[in-house]
Amino acid sequence: MKSPPTLADIADLVGGSLCGNGRITITGVAAISSAAEGDLTWVVQPQYADQLGNCRASAVLVGQDLADLPLPAIRCPDVEAALAQVLAWFCPPLPTPPPGVDPTAKVAPSASLGDGAALGPFVVVEDGAAVGPHTVLHAGVYVGPHARIGRDCRLWNNVVVRERCQLGDRVVIHPNCVIGSDGFGYYMRNGRHNRFPHLGRVVIGNDVEIGACSCVDRSKAGTTVIGAGTKIDNLVQVAHNVEIGENCVLCAQAGIAGSAKLGKWVVLGGQVGIRDNITLHDGVRVAACSCVPQDVSAGVNVAGVPAIEARQFLRVIAATHRSPELLAEMRELTKRIETLEAAANHQPGR
Amino acid sequence: MKSPPTLADIADLVGGSLCGNGRITITGVAAISSAAEGDLTWVVQPQYADQLGNCRASAVLVGQDLADLPLPAIRCPDVEAALAQVLAWFCPPLPTPPPGVDPTAKVAPSASLGDGAALGPFVVVEDGAAVGPHTVLHAGVYVGPHARIGRDCRLWNNVVVRERCQLGDRVVIHPNCVIGSDGFGYYMRNGRHNRFPHLGRVVIGNDVEIGACSCVDRSKAGTTVIGAGTKIDNLVQVAHNVEIGENCVLCAQAGIAGSAKLGKWVVLGGQVGIRDNITLHDGVRVAACSCVPQDVSAGVNVAGVPAIEARQFLRVIAATHRSPELLAEMRELTKRIETLEAAANHQPGR
Amino acid sequence: MKSPPTLADIADLVGGSLCGNGRITITGVAAISSAAEGDLTWVVQPQYADQLGNCRASAVLVGQDLADLPLPAIRCPDVEAALAQVLAWFCPPLPTPPPGVDPTAKVAPSASLGDGAALGPFVVVEDGAAVGPHTVLHAGVYVGPHARIGRDCRLWNNVVVRERCQLGDRVVIHPNCVIGSDGFGYYMRNGRHNRFPHLGRVVIGNDVEIGACSCVDRSKAGTTVIGAGTKIDNLVQVAHNVEIGENCVLCAQAGIAGSAKLGKWVVLGGQVGIRDNITLHDGVRVAACSCVPQDVSAGVNVAGVPAIEARQFLRVIAATHRSPELLAEMRELTKRIETLEAAANHQPGR
Repeated sequence: MKSPPTLADIADLVGGSLCGNGRITITGVAAISSAAEGDLTWVVQPQYADQLGNCRASAVLVGQDLADLPLPAIRCPDVEAALAQVLAWFCPPLPTPPPGVDPTAKVAPSASLGDGAALGPFVVVEDGAAVGPHTVLHAGVYVGPHARIGRDCRLWNNVVVRERCQLGDRVVIHPNCVIGSDGFGYYMRNGRHNRFPHLGRVVIGNDVEIGACSCVDRSKAGTTVIGAGTKIDNLVQVAHNVEIGENCVLCAQAGIAGSAKLGKWVVLGGQVGIRDNITLHDGVRVAACSCVPQDVSAGVNVAGVPAIEARQFLRVIAATHRSPELLAEMRELTKRIETLEAAANHQPGR
Repeated sequence: MKSPPTLADIADLVGGSLCGNGRITITGVAAISSAAEGDLTWVVQPQYADQLGNCRASAVLVGQDLADLPLPAIRCPDVEAALAQVLAWFCPPLPTPPPGVDPTAKVAPSASLGDGAALGPFVVVEDGAAVGPHTVLHAGVYVGPHARIGRDCRLWNNVVVRERCQLGDRVVIHPNCVIGSDGFGYYMRNGRHNRFPHLGRVVIGNDVEIGACSCVDRSKAGTTVIGAGTKIDNLVQVAHNVEIGENCVLCAQAGIAGSAKLGKWVVLGGQVGIRDNITLHDGVRVAACSCVPQDVSAGVNVAGVPAIEARQFLRVIAATHRSPELLAEMRELTKRIETLEAAANHQPGR
Repeated sequence: MKSPPTLADIADLVGGSLCGNGRITITGVAAISSAAEGDLTWVVQPQYADQLGNCRASAVLVGQDLADLPLPAIRCPDVEAALAQVLAWFCPPLPTPPPGVDPTAKVAPSASLGDGAALGPFVVVEDGAAVGPHTVLHAGVYVGPHARIGRDCRLWNNVVVRERCQLGDRVVIHPNCVIGSDGFGYYMRNGRHNRFPHLGRVVIGNDVEIGACSCVDRSKAGTTVIGAGTKIDNLVQVAHNVEIGENCVLCAQAGIAGSAKLGKWVVLGGQVGIRDNITLHDGVRVAACSCVPQDVSAGVNVAGVPAIEARQFLRVIAATHRSPELLAEMRELTKRIETLEAAANHQPGR
């Protein structure tokens, strides 16, 4: 265990400017609401600065524009980047098997392992597979025949990468995730579903991250693609033949049906469903719990089941929530019209 | 195998009063709709008693208020508690590795195992981890460095508990569940997502149960908390920094986004989504398939996407389902108004 | 590796008639949009034939009614069946452990293994379990005590089949799927949830397929049933005591609550939720992202949250999306009525 830094040490670490007593010791990092004495907290959005008055932290990491701080502070131009540096300082090293192959792991003679690759207990690497340099395979990982894992990757426990799939460099896959399982592809004859063989594969770009218990399927022919830099949360379904562009964000429990396409910087909220064979162009954002049934143009925000343009969705929901009163008003208007009609029918002039 | 009990034996077991022939042999337990000869069935809600006439069970477990039963019965003050006792009698012992460590398991020398702890094949327990007395780790379980598992817990196959997480006593985790994977926390710079290190951990109270393939994430700083007695179903997502109170119920495929808080006795139906950073106070109930976008006060029932008060949701849905006719009526009213207006414009008096 | 076939070879394989140069070599199979030179592509639905003009494939598999094809073709009466044959020809053999038991696997002496069963590394088969002939258990599979797996099954990595569950023949279970975990069954006393023992089991028919990270629970008493020929996608929840008929299709992330019943040929779209204790009769189809709260009659299509008849859902959604204008129109009509009323009140005749 490293000895705890002073606030001045942290200011040095992040290249920030110190405001207040730099000799206080910082023993941890915590959000405003849970910080205790010794903790460094942070403020990214200025509106949260009000809460610093009641915060028990010993110091705060802030941007350069906040004034009148009630506790010692480090000012820095990029609070989030500085926070990441501080967290990295305090974070114990990730548990990692030693470089080399655990004696219980089972590696095919024809598999290739890069320098410094670390394979934990009960790992299986099959014929012709390749594991890049400094890649970590935690206990129970399975790498199928002729799969290729890049360098500096980390596959957490029990991840399954099936045959011929390909992962770039610095890819992180969280526990119990499945890459390359067969797509859900059948054809019905005489009331029975017949499976297509699935000879496709999954190709995952550099710097992709995929959450625990998520699934990325292979297709019957062709490639399921996840673009570089895309981040996928837990329990997400990516069906066969889906193509996801670079730097997308897919929140937990989202699902993308077969052959759908996402451009770059697309963001799917939690539990979003995307229909098969549609395209979400660059920069589309889908609100949580929405279901998208058709193509969405670049940069458009959508929401709802089925999803429509997000501001229109808010108007529709507001109107819908008034619909019980609308029914009542409608009944009242009908009565007033009947009264007018009755009066008109009995007009002296008629 | 124990020899099957008589109905009188079961009456003794549950402390109920026998009505009818106590010498009949009971060979199993089954719901009314599927019971066969030899089975004991049960009635918790009186409205199901009507179905006993067509039920093939040999006897029934009932409350003290049902009259005119068409088959032998045991009356007891708490049918569910009695049913639990009977089921326990008939349930074969759960498969459990023998106390001690399977020869294929891999336990770090610095890990500590309580008396009677039972570790199955291919289990991994890392440096500094602690497994409490009489806790069972089924085949393939992984316990990360410095994680702490209480006493009398049962972690089913392939459960992953990452470093420094903490489980109370009598916790049950079902197969392929992941505790303590990294939260979904990034910050974007120049169009790329950068990961925050995640030094938080997960703390799970006594008597918690978590279903198969569910995920509970750690946060970048601070603790994800699941309160004592809370029960979580399969395929549920609990994001980083979430705090769940005691005795909550989260049905299958529910998802809770980052830093949301649930009070005590909160109930989430299946596939419910809870937005990040909101609070559901004690006793809130959310209907299945709802999406909650904002705080909910104690004791309130909500439903819908987005969720509103549940009775209002029913009114809104009823009105919404009438909206096609409403459009037609609106068109008709408009015509009638036009007629009245035309008549008014041609009035002799004008 | 087999040498690549000519187009004539493939025509022979599928029993189709050759149109064009049969001597060209076919090196792969690909969809119209991604095909390259050497690939065989296919057209199942005639409307896609237009795209063949821009397709780079060397040949196409088509039905017998398409005319004027811009590239060599094989005409066959059943394009999908022919495609399955071609894919099977090109698909490398699935990775499969050699028949017999991997030295690292742990098989109880009282378990029985059929001829040609193949158990991979780190497999566990418990007391009294039976694995049928030619069944494949990939690395990390767990088969609990007295479970029975039929013949010619394939259980992919880390699948967990708990005690006493039963799988038919030719069943395929994808990685990290859990069969027979305890249902979510509690009764509350004094604010605490008490678990019922779960002595039920899961019975899965012949030719069933279940996706990665899906969960099928056992009930406290009785049997969870999945009918022969039913296909289940990834991340699906099937709760305790559910009964699913034959040849159903459950798309990814669907969830079925406790004791619900599905007839035959029921189709659930992705992310569909089915309430507990209801029945969906034969041939019901539920649109993606819908939530079904009550029984549905045979052959009916439903959609929505809560689900209603699908065509009515489309009408309701169309009307709902017009509801903001409806509110505005309503306000305008009210004004016009007020004008009429004012005029009527000041009529000379009154």
